[in-house]
Amino acid sequence: MERTVFFLDQKEMPTSWYNILPDLPEALPPYISPATGKLVTPQELGRIFPMELIKQEMSQERYIEIPEEIQAIYRTWRPSGLHRAFQLEKALKTPARIFYKYEGSSPAGSHKPNTAIPQAYYNMKEGVTRIATETGAGQWGSALSYSCSMFGIECKVYMVKVSYNQKPYRRILMETWGATCVPSPSTDTKAGRDALAKDPQSGGSLGLAISEAVEDAVTHENTHYSLGSVLNHVLLHQTIIGLESQKQMEMAGYYPDIVIGCVGGGSNFGGIAMPFLKDKISGKHKNIRCIAVEPMACPTLTKGHYEFDYGDVAGMAPICKMYTLGHNFMPAPVHAGGLRYHGMSPLVSLLYKLKLIEAKAVFQRPTFEAGVLFARTEGILPAPESNHAIRVAIDEALACKATGEAKTILFNLSGHGHFDLASYEEYHSGRLPDYEYPDEKVKEALKTLPKVSL
Amino acid sequence: MERTVFFLDQKEMPTSWYNILPDLPEALPPYISPATGKLVTPQELGRIFPMELIKQEMSQERYIEIPEEIQAIYRTWRPSGLHRAFQLEKALKTPARIFYKYEGSSPAGSHKPNTAIPQAYYNMKEGVTRIATETGAGQWGSALSYSCSMFGIECKVYMVKVSYNQKPYRRILMETWGATCVPSPSTDTKAGRDALAKDPQSGGSLGLAISEAVEDAVTHENTHYSLGSVLNHVLLHQTIIGLESQKQMEMAGYYPDIVIGCVGGGSNFGGIAMPFLKDKISGKHKNIRCIAVEPMACPTLTKGHYEFDYGDVAGMAPICKMYTLGHNFMPAPVHAGGLRYHGMSPLVSLLYKLKLIEAKAVFQRPTFEAGVLFARTEGILPAPESNHAIRVAIDEALACKATGEAKTILFNLSGHGHFDLASYEEYHSGRLPDYEYPDEKVKEALKTLPKVSL
Repeated sequence: MERTVFFLDQKEMPTSWYNILPDLPEALPPYISPATGKLVTPQELGRIFPMELIKQEMSQERYIEIPEEIQAIYRTWRPSGLHRAFQLEKALKTPARIFYKYEGSSPAGSHKPNTAIPQAYYNMKEGVTRIATETGAGQWGSALSYSCSMFGIECKVYMVKVSYNQKPYRRILMETWGATCVPSPSTDTKAGRDALAKDPQSGGSLGLAISEAVEDAVTHENTHYSLGSVLNHVLLHQTIIGLESQKQMEMAGYYPDIVIGCVGGGSNFGGIAMPFLKDKISGKHKNIRCIAVEPMACPTLTKGHYEFDYGDVAGMAPICKMYTLGHNFMPAPVHAGGLRYHGMSPLVSLLYKLKLIEAKAVFQRPTFEAGVLFARTEGILPAPESNHAIRVAIDEALACKATGEAKTILFNLSGHGHFDLASYEEYHSGRLPDYEYPDEKVKEALKTLPKVSL
Repeated sequence: MERTVFFLDQKEMPTSWYNILPDLPEALPPYISPATGKLVTPQELGRIFPMELIKQEMSQERYIEIPEEIQAIYRTWRPSGLHRAFQLEKALKTPARIFYKYEGSSPAGSHKPNTAIPQAYYNMKEGVTRIATETGAGQWGSALSYSCSMFGIECKVYMVKVSYNQKPYRRILMETWGATCVPSPSTDTKAGRDALAKDPQSGGSLGLAISEAVEDAVTHENTHYSLGSVLNHVLLHQTIIGLESQKQMEMAGYYPDIVIGCVGGGSNFGGIAMPFLKDKISGKHKNIRCIAVEPMACPTLTKGHYEFDYGDVAGMAPICKMYTLGHNFMPAPVHAGGLRYHGMSPLVSLLYKLKLIEAKAVFQRPTFEAGVLFARTEGILPAPESNHAIRVAIDEALACKATGEAKTILFNLSGHGHFDLASYEEYHSGRLPDYEYPDEKVKEALKTLPKVSL
């Protein structure tokens, strides 16, 4: 009897995260303060983040221990299953072996709680009683709401108003976990009120919601801000995905030739890929290919430039060196809301610049085509973001079919699509559009990069 | 390091279902044909069910082997996790040990695929290429859509029109798995057209949807009908829940004092309870208590009578001896759509009559109160049906707190509530009503029982 899912016993759950910083062949460029244009200080970051996370952000320790209190909550759904996609392979008639790590079994339905739990925990440990954050489609907001409820922390979520109105289920989910969720622009902050004064009908943007959450954090007592992707400590926490996958691939008896994840800010891809990249950098498995998949509508790695840019539209977040389309860029309304980010994690950016990873941009419709085939063979209904990874996994498996090679492909199924069914209906009805981000617009957007003096 | 979830390796997944029929202290009364008023014949049942399922319905074999093709699909999500509810225990300050078996990790989000998969499989084996069924809130329809897509069978779902309009996500889910879903009453059947002629605005009912699906099955070539609860073979397939739980409780080092499940037709309760009832009947664990929890709005066990009644409103389904509120009963619109059934599985009914199990009826609001506490402690957002089991598990744990006893409580968390968030919003807003089914209405409804000549 063959296994389809490789479950690790909870006693085998990794007890440390993997920090790639000391293994990088080239140092990561520093963060710049948007206020001073100079190196950001830990004190500046300390206004909005707990010291432990700031330490992790810059740590040169290869392994960072996961506190037992965090492990206890991780054990609600971790170790997550690693699946062999037997039925997808059969449907594709490919000699390739396709595996996927399924992160949709977390209470919030995605990989986001892997970092939301430690972020809430370290804030709680430092006496923070309230956290403010922003959310677009609601994946991050619901993960943080869940995590705050686990540690008795108040949670305030500024949700981009168009999503707030379109996705009431995500909002109710956050409220069920006890969070307060308001549409952004809101009247609760100066940034929100200013935006509403300019345009009372404003549907909001992720950039504006970040500004509101940061303002909320610095103007309230005992309140911090929390970010769901991009930063080093976020990717660090997500490495539990890759570390578990390595143990499970060993159970399965294969080492992957290709590792695939979708990228918005870069955390689910970084989380699965970095432990394997350690083997690539060390020369132990130097031929492994790691592929980051992004939407054609937001081709940060494939069309962006590697420059210093703001992390947010309002220019309040730290400036970092990353692949960027310019912080003023306005992405087309693809359903993969989690991939609509102008920049890219500095870590993933450096890995790409060093050619340690590859990148592919894909159109929206083919990603849904892949997701529907996946649902009809493997059963699980994927999130629109995850469909990007599935698309490229299928493409690689079809390439194997053409050459007859039996490669081992592993991809990260970052979340389920239970809250995204309206997008599937659009696909079924034939109304789902493809979007591309035109080269001229990229050029235009890149003119807005900030001045940095190092 | 303590475990929170007890995962069984896939190699330890049970390879047989447990059939309680040969262990019953008293024989189950036979089914009666609605056409003849006499014992139903296998030939009559063969019009709508495959022979293998009819055999299972009446089998006296204690264990029935699970074919490898079914095990292969089960392995997409089975064995499901058994969780220790450490955080709920802490919140309740109870000495009780609370465990729950989580069936929401199946692709359809509930326990329903445990029987939908074998039903689709046996139909496929007998050359059936199309299955018709009904669905209320959509749990069963989506489970069968998923299962049919696994075996290349066409699936037609008649969905009660009010739910079809209120729950578009469940419909899109079915369509994503390739099923055709129409609102019932539909123009596709005579039963539907007649209903529409009488009342063009009809919102439909489960009884009418059953009539449409059965008519569809008998008027189309190579088409069968499929039922998601009530019947013996359905409960048989669900015993995999209890069989796995027994192995996992052994891993945990405890045997339950109390086993709890919600009941509509009775399949998720029967599925978890029956393997434990084997130990009760044999005297091995004679003090174990199994509690079936139903809504006050539909108190089949606690207020119904043990009589022969139709399985459906239209009187087309087999007549069986069961606890019933009368087949014409109209349940109040509680959100636990899966528990709004006038009858009860004949097996669960007999077990209740023999006092081998207990029953409790609970109001709607306290079940949501329990579900929200569960979400804020254990993280998982439960289905409204499952909230009934949680309510009684909490009540039993609080009773332990009062007496100081450290009982071991196991309940079945039959599904997640990702598609039921509108009901949580109603609860949060304070607008969620409690419903009771008045005694006079029970008396009235019971006057409609059919005449049976045995």
